[in-house]
Amino acid sequence: MQGSFWMKRVFSDLYRRGMSSYLVDDSRYSFLRELELNKRNSGVYNGKWFGSGEVVTSISPASGQIIAEVVTGNEADYDACVSASQEAWQQWSELPAPRRGNIVQQIGDALRAKLLPLGKLVSLEMGKILPEGIGEVQEYVDICDYAVGLSRTLEGKYLPSERPGHALMEVWNPLGVIGVISAFNFPLAVYGWNSAIAMVCGDTVLWKGAPSTSLVSVATTKLVSRVLERNGLPGAICALCQGGSLIGELMVKDERLPLISFTGSTAVGQKVGVQVQQRFGKSLLELGGNNSVVVADDADLDLVVPSVVFASVGTAGQRCTTLRRLILHKQVYDTVLERLKRAYSQVLLKVGDPLGEGTLLGPLHSTEAVHNFKTRVEEVIRAGGKVEFGGK
Amino acid sequence: MQGSFWMKRVFSDLYRRGMSSYLVDDSRYSFLRELELNKRNSGVYNGKWFGSGEVVTSISPASGQIIAEVVTGNEADYDACVSASQEAWQQWSELPAPRRGNIVQQIGDALRAKLLPLGKLVSLEMGKILPEGIGEVQEYVDICDYAVGLSRTLEGKYLPSERPGHALMEVWNPLGVIGVISAFNFPLAVYGWNSAIAMVCGDTVLWKGAPSTSLVSVATTKLVSRVLERNGLPGAICALCQGGSLIGELMVKDERLPLISFTGSTAVGQKVGVQVQQRFGKSLLELGGNNSVVVADDADLDLVVPSVVFASVGTAGQRCTTLRRLILHKQVYDTVLERLKRAYSQVLLKVGDPLGEGTLLGPLHSTEAVHNFKTRVEEVIRAGGKVEFGGK
Amino acid sequence: MQGSFWMKRVFSDLYRRGMSSYLVDDSRYSFLRELELNKRNSGVYNGKWFGSGEVVTSISPASGQIIAEVVTGNEADYDACVSASQEAWQQWSELPAPRRGNIVQQIGDALRAKLLPLGKLVSLEMGKILPEGIGEVQEYVDICDYAVGLSRTLEGKYLPSERPGHALMEVWNPLGVIGVISAFNFPLAVYGWNSAIAMVCGDTVLWKGAPSTSLVSVATTKLVSRVLERNGLPGAICALCQGGSLIGELMVKDERLPLISFTGSTAVGQKVGVQVQQRFGKSLLELGGNNSVVVADDADLDLVVPSVVFASVGTAGQRCTTLRRLILHKQVYDTVLERLKRAYSQVLLKVGDPLGEGTLLGPLHSTEAVHNFKTRVEEVIRAGGKVEFGGK
Amino acid sequence: MQGSFWMKRVFSDLYRRGMSSYLVDDSRYSFLRELELNKRNSGVYNGKWFGSGEVVTSISPASGQIIAEVVTGNEADYDACVSASQEAWQQWSELPAPRRGNIVQQIGDALRAKLLPLGKLVSLEMGKILPEGIGEVQEYVDICDYAVGLSRTLEGKYLPSERPGHALMEVWNPLGVIGVISAFNFPLAVYGWNSAIAMVCGDTVLWKGAPSTSLVSVATTKLVSRVLERNGLPGAICALCQGGSLIGELMVKDERLPLISFTGSTAVGQKVGVQVQQRFGKSLLELGGNNSVVVADDADLDLVVPSVVFASVGTAGQRCTTLRRLILHKQVYDTVLERLKRAYSQVLLKVGDPLGEGTLLGPLHSTEAVHNFKTRVEEVIRAGGKVEFGGK
Repeated sequence: MQGSFWMKRVFSDLYRRGMSSYLVDDSRYSFLRELELNKRNSGVYNGKWFGSGEVVTSISPASGQIIAEVVTGNEADYDACVSASQEAWQQWSELPAPRRGNIVQQIGDALRAKLLPLGKLVSLEMGKILPEGIGEVQEYVDICDYAVGLSRTLEGKYLPSERPGHALMEVWNPLGVIGVISAFNFPLAVYGWNSAIAMVCGDTVLWKGAPSTSLVSVATTKLVSRVLERNGLPGAICALCQGGSLIGELMVKDERLPLISFTGSTAVGQKVGVQVQQRFGKSLLELGGNNSVVVADDADLDLVVPSVVFASVGTAGQRCTTLRRLILHKQVYDTVLERLKRAYSQVLLKVGDPLGEGTLLGPLHSTEAVHNFKTRVEEVIRAGGKVEFGGK
Repeated sequence: MQGSFWMKRVFSDLYRRGMSSYLVDDSRYSFLRELELNKRNSGVYNGKWFGSGEVVTSISPASGQIIAEVVTGNEADYDACVSASQEAWQQWSELPAPRRGNIVQQIGDALRAKLLPLGKLVSLEMGKILPEGIGEVQEYVDICDYAVGLSRTLEGKYLPSERPGHALMEVWNPLGVIGVISAFNFPLAVYGWNSAIAMVCGDTVLWKGAPSTSLVSVATTKLVSRVLERNGLPGAICALCQGGSLIGELMVKDERLPLISFTGSTAVGQKVGVQVQQRFGKSLLELGGNNSVVVADDADLDLVVPSVVFASVGTAGQRCTTLRRLILHKQVYDTVLERLKRAYSQVLLKVGDPLGEGTLLGPLHSTEAVHNFKTRVEEVIRAGGKVEFGGK
Repeated sequence: MQGSFWMKRVFSDLYRRGMSSYLVDDSRYSFLRELELNKRNSGVYNGKWFGSGEVVTSISPASGQIIAEVVTGNEADYDACVSASQEAWQQWSELPAPRRGNIVQQIGDALRAKLLPLGKLVSLEMGKILPEGIGEVQEYVDICDYAVGLSRTLEGKYLPSERPGHALMEVWNPLGVIGVISAFNFPLAVYGWNSAIAMVCGDTVLWKGAPSTSLVSVATTKLVSRVLERNGLPGAICALCQGGSLIGELMVKDERLPLISFTGSTAVGQKVGVQVQQRFGKSLLELGGNNSVVVADDADLDLVVPSVVFASVGTAGQRCTTLRRLILHKQVYDTVLERLKRAYSQVLLKVGDPLGEGTLLGPLHSTEAVHNFKTRVEEVIRAGGKVEFGGK
Repeated sequence: MQGSFWMKRVFSDLYRRGMSSYLVDDSRYSFLRELELNKRNSGVYNGKWFGSGEVVTSISPASGQIIAEVVTGNEADYDACVSASQEAWQQWSELPAPRRGNIVQQIGDALRAKLLPLGKLVSLEMGKILPEGIGEVQEYVDICDYAVGLSRTLEGKYLPSERPGHALMEVWNPLGVIGVISAFNFPLAVYGWNSAIAMVCGDTVLWKGAPSTSLVSVATTKLVSRVLERNGLPGAICALCQGGSLIGELMVKDERLPLISFTGSTAVGQKVGVQVQQRFGKSLLELGGNNSVVVADDADLDLVVPSVVFASVGTAGQRCTTLRRLILHKQVYDTVLERLKRAYSQVLLKVGDPLGEGTLLGPLHSTEAVHNFKTRVEEVIRAGGKVEFGGK
């Protein structure tokens, strides 16, 4: 029964939720205040903070406790974001790229200064363990460094022409407002990759993060907006409109957004791609995976076992790169299975609060995810599969 | 005594030379006429053929027989070449690069059409075996293809500037007349590499080939000049001034030649580099090598032995990439040595006329080379070295 | 009534068509035989020629006379093309890129040798004037040169990694069979651009040309296939399946074709893009245009007038880059109008057989195009527009 | 007599020098202490600070007052620098480039934090006005940003090969210890450009700054060394060996330094280039200029006059890009001359202490420079030239 220890905890916590005070008021989570989060937070930003849509309650997947609330955007809010971001683009796109790079560098520095609190928020709200939470912030920092260099090296080509006295010039122009729709499993890094590159390219960004990680979106945008404001630049260069599928659909169909970067499931991504193509827009799709490891009979098992475990349980298996299938040569089948069981039994000792010291495996992100996981295991069993470890 | 069989032949042939008729008149060498070579050939070309310097007699290193004569250039001839090439540059550098590429393509096609006769000439005059002679022409053909593409893809960069409304453009401009001094061991390919690239870049070329391979220089320039003339372009785009060290020194010191590409010995290359640097010119130096092969105890000897033999006897050891030292792990020392001896004994059966069917090893290029080779072997023996095979 | 002189001729010719013998049998059109065209031609090629679909009759838009017939492909024929091209890809994609470039170079040379007959066929079957027909072949030749260079310079990047002892390598791999759907107005060049680049990249190509220019597709594929066969390579590297919208739809939905390059109307292109995206394929869309020229009051009218006329009447206005709207500053309105009328009256004198010496304007490609043209003019008049010249 | 007002001040100050206390002890120059400078400073650094050579007294060119002293390196000190830097290279070159970029980023941040004091030191010791002094530090900061990006984008190419199953890889490897010899007129920025790029490329640096700006070298190296030490890296990654021509000559001839970057006069640069070429080393030479402005009769004089003045008096004319010759169309000659005189009379009012508020023109760097300037003016007069303004 060990395997579902924390799942049970989630459920019981969900019942207890009514009685909980908000974690944002809990002094053990003072990093939330450090990130300028309040009990109720506006989830829309276009230079100023507002929001007239539904209120989303952000819950810690580990404890089921409420962290804080976010007021999402409605259709009018969304429109106000796009308009402001388009207007901001007029100014931003005219700024020399190295100057834009300098702003991105300041964002990187601001992130460095909040590496720990922001990493903790990612861990608390998404559920991944703290080193992974911090790792996401670090990825944003790294892409900022990369983008700073790009702001001085982003090149077109100057090519010979067939025509005397002429040359061909390849000049990269900014597109406009870039729509970024990100998923719960990487609530911060995906935005960082997209926005840092878009910004040095001269584009402004409108972000919709996953509803269940709205606090990460708000805290990140607060931090970014401080940098923009300090430099006398329009905040709508990095606009935010939290919300659910309504906002996502508005973005996908909006001709004012020349490029949609979507991260999420393959099923939704297919629809997004088609709808954006319908209006001759551009899309970046970061969708699901289905990875397997094939272990040959001469493989180095000391490398195989930890790799397989990490690839399977990292981010509690909620990554596009998560390992789903392990294909073993018959000569190593028994050995690998035995060693994996031993490894998993070690991991079980480290299941728990993702913010806790030494935790290796945190919770699934939602009760829906728990349900899907159980259902899938049942299907496998019905299909003749056998649970080798845990699952009772 | 096998090893020096053909060396002896060289010497005896040298004595007989006086009586020989010129090979250019010999019907067995009719490819020479096909290449527009005559008994006496002008060795200077700047749009027309002339030459007032010394007459060089070109000798087949395999037989010692005279092939034909070339009238080299004197100082005035050289000056007439540089002037004409500078003037041609005015027109050539203004031509769109893809149009220049088209000319180079036509040169490539002309070379394809003369692959065999030109390959035979390289083999006859330089002494390398026919497949190597043809290989040189093929390398020139290949670089022409490469240069054709380059004529449409040779790019500068268009980069962001710190200054609003500005951009940085990297534009590659032609230099002027490029001086190419090539060596006897690759009498054709080195010129091909340098000239094809220089031509698409918008530069004209002044070539001085090795005196002892003057016929290759003349035949190649004839072929190239036909293409230029057919297109109504000045022949001095590809000027030629055969001659000895006098012409070489004029080139190295001439401020009208912004870039000198020199292939030859390290000792001379050092002087060339310094003299060109003295006048703030640019130099490309392709000098000597000193290659070794280290054979570990677990090496695949089936790969080692033929590689070592080919790297040692290819071009009769007259390449910058020739293998000079073989460093054997003691556990494979005896085996490798034994197998090398066997391999060399096979090679000995294939020593002979480089134009002959199946020949693997042709003559050294000159009597001086033969002398140097013998002297070096004697030094090695005096230093305690042992001749394991041949040499008697 | 001058303007529709040749349109009338088209219609009367259409009536007379029944009586005409095929132009392929007419000695004045002997270039058709030179291109290996017959009275009835197979329109499907996958290494051998076949075809079991509808028979298309190819008509000269200028005279309405039948040129020859082409047997298009049905669904089974199409499948045989894709299978063969996939199999050919196994071999082709493994060939070193420079070797593939060499094949493309031979295709370029083969096109050079047939520049005139192929240009004449384009002109005869599509209706554009001969210089434009030859121009299309030349564009294919040029892209071959470009592709040859690309075959040696197509680069990935080798980048620093964060991980000690590691590097990041960007390696471009071939995709598979590329589907090319081209339009009537550039029946040859569009295929050339797509296929030459695809080929050096290691991809094979399946082409469906416009049904009304099937002879160009057949003649071009004959020429290309000769090169492939001469080199002992599978013909299905450049497969052909002529046909109508059925074949087009099969291609668009076929997961075996990872990339569809479509040239045609915006309306159809939108559907193509969406259907390809639906299956996560890649698409290259070359669709309609809507170009205008804005003439300021200080414009150089000597440049404006011929530019406008050429941009309007070139290819009889059947280009994506055709000029549709002319926006004149009021101060130059009258002058430009007057000069344009004069210019058009000159053009009228040069309307006629596109193969004829000095013809500037040939026929529209089809009776449907004539109908659309007339209808559009009527709409403009109803909307208050005025016909300033011709049209009566 | 206005023009030489400050020159005279220089001379009188030189006489007074004996009595001056050191500026490093003067509280008005407290930024010197902030830069960790002392009365006597070691001028050699290879991980630790030392120096056994001559003592150089650093003088403010504006006042002739002594700032502080620097103990330069002798031959043994130099050797200790090269050895340590070679050893440091073993570690530094193995570090992943992005990690090296992170160090350079920290150096950039450290420079940002000392922008003003370091800018003041440049101004005080070199003599250029404060905005130019700060500008030099900013250039170093900017190149650090650029280099950070480069550390993740510095690319080789991955190219197709003629050989089946093979590819060509272009991999850029670090060279070793780079020798940087910089000049007095840009005592900081030139080092910044060279060292930031060299560092991300994996090379270590040995710097010899101009003797008369030794304090800038010491202060900069202190700042850089703090970053290296904080990261547990060998200080000899950025070694320093102040000294005169002896050290310079050792560097130029030293085969352990594969690349010499030299900034200075054309005469010395020629010798450096030749000596480095002699040993087949690489050199980067940043030498003298001889710039002219040609003013046509339709030039915008509002742009011409300030451009000419700035290009002439900036850095007191001590730049390779300084304007030396003004070529005026006769129709604008009088007007431009008149306006230049007016402009120069304005500049004269702003001659003075380079650290002073509003100063536009500071002193020449040395008494030798003053002498050369006077001599050159006299030569011009003797040659028939006329002094239009100042000079009396």
